[in-house]
Amino acid sequence: MAPNTEVEAVTDTSSVVVGDPVLANGPTRPVFTLDDVLPHREKSKPPPSTVAAFSNATMFKSEGCLNKPKSQSFEHRLSSESKSRNPSSLKNAMKYFRPETISLCGGLPSSDYFPFEELSATLPVPPQFSEAEALASGRTFSSGKHDVREGKSVFDLSIALNYGQSMGPGALLRFITEHTEIVHNPPYSDWEICMTAGSTSALEIALRMLTERGHYVLTEEYTFSSAIETVAPMGCKMLGVKIDADGMLPDDLDHILSTWDESARRAPKPFLVYTVPTGQNPTASTQSLARRKQIYAVAEKHDLFILEDEPYYFLQMEPFISGATHSVPVPFKPVPVADFLANLVPSYLSLDKSGRVLRLDSFSKIVAPGSRCGWVTGQPQIIERFIRHSEVSVQTPAGFATTALYNLLEQNWGHKGFLEWLMYIRAEYTRRRDIIVNACEAYLPTEVASWVPPKAGMFHWIHVDITQHPLYKSKSRDGNIDYATLLEIEDSVFLAGVEQNVLIAKGSWFRAQRGSDKELFFRTTFAAAPADKIVEAIRKVGTAIRKEFGLEEKQNGHAR
Amino acid sequence: MAPNTEVEAVTDTSSVVVGDPVLANGPTRPVFTLDDVLPHREKSKPPPSTVAAFSNATMFKSEGCLNKPKSQSFEHRLSSESKSRNPSSLKNAMKYFRPETISLCGGLPSSDYFPFEELSATLPVPPQFSEAEALASGRTFSSGKHDVREGKSVFDLSIALNYGQSMGPGALLRFITEHTEIVHNPPYSDWEICMTAGSTSALEIALRMLTERGHYVLTEEYTFSSAIETVAPMGCKMLGVKIDADGMLPDDLDHILSTWDESARRAPKPFLVYTVPTGQNPTASTQSLARRKQIYAVAEKHDLFILEDEPYYFLQMEPFISGATHSVPVPFKPVPVADFLANLVPSYLSLDKSGRVLRLDSFSKIVAPGSRCGWVTGQPQIIERFIRHSEVSVQTPAGFATTALYNLLEQNWGHKGFLEWLMYIRAEYTRRRDIIVNACEAYLPTEVASWVPPKAGMFHWIHVDITQHPLYKSKSRDGNIDYATLLEIEDSVFLAGVEQNVLIAKGSWFRAQRGSDKELFFRTTFAAAPADKIVEAIRKVGTAIRKEFGLEEKQNGHAR
Repeated sequence: MAPNTEVEAVTDTSSVVVGDPVLANGPTRPVFTLDDVLPHREKSKPPPSTVAAFSNATMFKSEGCLNKPKSQSFEHRLSSESKSRNPSSLKNAMKYFRPETISLCGGLPSSDYFPFEELSATLPVPPQFSEAEALASGRTFSSGKHDVREGKSVFDLSIALNYGQSMGPGALLRFITEHTEIVHNPPYSDWEICMTAGSTSALEIALRMLTERGHYVLTEEYTFSSAIETVAPMGCKMLGVKIDADGMLPDDLDHILSTWDESARRAPKPFLVYTVPTGQNPTASTQSLARRKQIYAVAEKHDLFILEDEPYYFLQMEPFISGATHSVPVPFKPVPVADFLANLVPSYLSLDKSGRVLRLDSFSKIVAPGSRCGWVTGQPQIIERFIRHSEVSVQTPAGFATTALYNLLEQNWGHKGFLEWLMYIRAEYTRRRDIIVNACEAYLPTEVASWVPPKAGMFHWIHVDITQHPLYKSKSRDGNIDYATLLEIEDSVFLAGVEQNVLIAKGSWFRAQRGSDKELFFRTTFAAAPADKIVEAIRKVGTAIRKEFGLEEKQNGHAR
Repeated sequence: MAPNTEVEAVTDTSSVVVGDPVLANGPTRPVFTLDDVLPHREKSKPPPSTVAAFSNATMFKSEGCLNKPKSQSFEHRLSSESKSRNPSSLKNAMKYFRPETISLCGGLPSSDYFPFEELSATLPVPPQFSEAEALASGRTFSSGKHDVREGKSVFDLSIALNYGQSMGPGALLRFITEHTEIVHNPPYSDWEICMTAGSTSALEIALRMLTERGHYVLTEEYTFSSAIETVAPMGCKMLGVKIDADGMLPDDLDHILSTWDESARRAPKPFLVYTVPTGQNPTASTQSLARRKQIYAVAEKHDLFILEDEPYYFLQMEPFISGATHSVPVPFKPVPVADFLANLVPSYLSLDKSGRVLRLDSFSKIVAPGSRCGWVTGQPQIIERFIRHSEVSVQTPAGFATTALYNLLEQNWGHKGFLEWLMYIRAEYTRRRDIIVNACEAYLPTEVASWVPPKAGMFHWIHVDITQHPLYKSKSRDGNIDYATLLEIEDSVFLAGVEQNVLIAKGSWFRAQRGSDKELFFRTTFAAAPADKIVEAIRKVGTAIRKEFGLEEKQNGHAR
């Protein structure tokens, strides 16, 4: 077995983990902690390690998990496209494959013709996570073509670089299954997992599985622009549910559904909710546990199906303190894993007794977007249909990506190292959040600009009071302006930023129902630019807004 | 600039390249050879090397290419889904990005938080391509996080592992553009390229761009089972065009279209052709140049659009000689590149004056399936729509894959090394083809089994005379049996193989119009199993067929 940081002593044996028994309404749920991973592996079968081997999450679950009640069926929510998919004839034939079988069936090239003998990655060793430390003391992990045959590993290039099953290679699926139990501990037993080519791809597949042309998809009033741009060409519309600083409002969701008039709306009552519960894109709102329970109750009442898109889940931050900037020690000092997990708002997956949640996870924001790799977790029929769709589209994540992730997660970090890395980037994003919010306090004209400091994610959402804009004052009638004028004002602020050499994102791009904007927002991100550039950019945004709103330049921002 | 094998002396300066002027009906076309690559690069701009930079093929084309006539519009062939796609709001904003701009716009993580300092690959150096040589004398190529900043490269991990534009990174798009000019030399000037997450994904996208529910897609009578399984859930049907040993029959294609009756067929006249012209899956048929010209003429006549799916294009083989097996020298002895290219049947792309061909290329069969990386080449509006779809689905190939491909193609091999590698695997597949066909001659009962030795690809298609089967003899009426009986016979042969521990693929899986089979076929592949296992498996298939057909075991196969 590969070296794994689980074998090192762990101090966090407390039972305070997310998926905590108090969260479920039913009987106490068994928990699965870091300490349970290695003993469980030792008494279980290793992941399958032949080319294109079938595996699933159930192979790797703990006994406690397997004893939970099963999920409900959500077949009635599947689209006609999804229902009509048949299993791949060729992949189906593999059920006749035995160890002694010679296959002349599938056109899988021999690994003799993969021109890669070894792939290596130089990786940071926990807790020396900073780039400078990683460059100085990173370790190199390698995968050879025939490591499995040579007894060195359960995953090698002869497997990774060939075709594979759409749920992903067993060696990684095991890691992700364990991670899911440790972090989410879903309340039902038969959840399954399919690896994805990233959440953008996973969202497209999920939408094709769960919508028909003419359907509405429920989401936050402002939502991820790419999600809007994915839904529209499918002939569907986003329907925005009202939000506050804690995200989607359960009462409004219930109201929309309870009063749905199919003939007036010319559409069936919606059942699909697309939500980013944590560090929502673009508003940065983060649903509290109470909010999530309320939304889930509405979902139970109206038999909804929830797409829980959670790229920023682990970027939940310390509270913002005006004027202060959290520092990140070098080397990083992780807290016990159980403490970290206990402070995360529980996921919908962890509350989902019925199986009505498909959770979308991604390595993009927590490892690298170029992995084009993530995973979905949900009810087994839903995952089976997801696999069928993947077989005739993305097939699998790239083997070069799964090799790098295997080296990183399984060979180098283990679960403990991975969770410590997540603490590290959470701390880094907290620091960056502090920088941007403090810069806003210093440089934005508070006469017109307001915001709520983000609790999670990588975005900062800024409200600008459109009623103070000269064009608004001259054009409004009864306190309203037309959409074209709103766009004109928005564009003028955007272009004033461009003139200052700063790019920010327009709120209207994120409006779930395009064209229904009444207010002015801008999305900024603290993920990309270096700290000093963030401050400079926000200062220039302040200048741009003042210019457009005819306000005087502030003489001395207190952060100067 | 990276070390590149083009700088080495090349001996193949002859003008005999594919895309040869004689192939076009119009005036002589300029050609672009290996020797032209480096001089062209030296007088051109380098590929863009900032994060998520825009690039396109036109940036990298030769002057001769840019002076050709433009393509026609095929907008009238786009689906309503495809037509309704808007560009990504966020990506569109990048047009305001200047070198001095600070972007707070796109949520691209800082490369500070990519836990990969360096990625390395140990690769075979031309012409030491065999696994033993690569293990003994392979060289290691690396990519660091900041190679671009350090002036070492035009591509590094800070770019590869972040989000990128859907057409792919400029450094690889340049290589693929040059490759396209060297190999295909398309007759029109404005062709474009988008990198893909493999041809399975590209096919799904192309079908969603070019079909509506209720449409027919024209293809070979027997076609790739996955393509059938992709088309069906979209509400479309495959329509099989008759074939011979040279593939699709142009007269039948013309006949179907000329006699199309929309009301009788309850479908509009089809316009989309899906074809695998070289080493077709499953029949291994390879369309001759004359055949391709005839099909293209039918396409011009009926305004068709052709999806040219060519994973096996470079696996075009030496003719089969009964009893002989081509050997592959170690180290490999490549012929001059121009000779290799001159012996390839020209592609549809190289014949396409109008822009009615979308060519699908893939690294899966020529480098490794785990790359999940390929590219499409075609008319610019079609590629633009393809990019729009990619933006909200697969986004890009994985950065771990593009890094490995950059190390392989650009740092190690260059165009000459890549084409020599293609000669090598062509030779290896020729050897494997010889082994399977000789084994068939030795062990299959020629009373009932017949075949045409493959000229390309990785499949061997075997016809079995169903009329000789006992069940046929007992159940046929007027020389016909029902479909259920055909499937019963097919399954009995398949299961007799399984009993012998051999898996082969059933012909019915590949029947374009499911359920219309009249004959019995089996697809075997010589790609996967080692040589001795191929012979053993075919011997067992012979035993299985004899058993099912009640034939006597051959006493001494001449290859024993």
